Amino acid sequence: MHPNHNVISSEDVQGTKICDAAGKEIGEIDHMIIDKVSGRVAYAVMSFGGFMGLGHSHYPVPWDALKYDTSLQGFRTNITEQQLREAPEFSDDAWEDRNWEVKTHSHYRASYYWEMGAH
Amino acid sequence: MHPNHNVISSEDVQGTKICDAAGKEIGEIDHMIIDKVSGRVAYAVMSFGGFMGLGHSHYPVPWDALKYDTSLQGFRTNITEQQLREAPEFSDDAWEDRNWEVKTHSHYRASYYWEMGAH
Repeated sequence: MHPNHNVISSEDVQGTKICDAAGKEIGEIDHMIIDKVSGRVAYAVMSFGGFMGLGHSHYPVPWDALKYDTSLQGFRTNITEQQLREAPEFSDDAWEDRNWEVKTHSHYRASYYWEMGAH
Repeated sequence: MHPNHNVISSEDVQGTKICDAAGKEIGEIDHMIIDKVSGRVAYAVMSFGGFMGLGHSHYPVPWDALKYDTSLQGFRTNITEQQLREAPEFSDDAWEDRNWEVKTHSHYRASYYWEMGAH
């Protein structure tokens, strides 16, 4: 891992910790969901060991809701436990449903990845 | 893996075969290099078991040079062994060097990922 670099290996994303706004570790990235045509990472599928009582063990969150923080050597997010509890229902095919995608991005206040330009 | 879907899991990209223009398997994707800010996959790092005598065991190639082909259940590329042999020299830090990136994308006739819009 080269924390000061602009790029990151997919192998270093998977398993990397995610911290809340205060810097407390809340979970990690299990894998990513990639849009094949644009090559853009659409979602990080997060596993939350730290948040108890969630309905799912894994949650897809928009990539745009995560920021790599070199001081943490991990990702930082403003997503809260309550947001996860209230997230739009999802299944394994959720990301094929643009309606679900719009609801989910709005829920997490993330930019729609399919409308983002180059950077 | 859901081959007809628009999206793919990073876990399904890694280890997925790559075929040449004729559909012959030439190698596989080892991992991806992701631009942290845009969330765009910049390079697939390919391992080539089929091409003998290459100088490296792994080659970074622009994501744009690969197309997922549902009939192959893998990626198809027009990249040739000769192109790999003649690829701009690279090191582990090559993707931090925009000059190398420009040369490499030009070499493989791929669009610059940093100039690509949404799809």
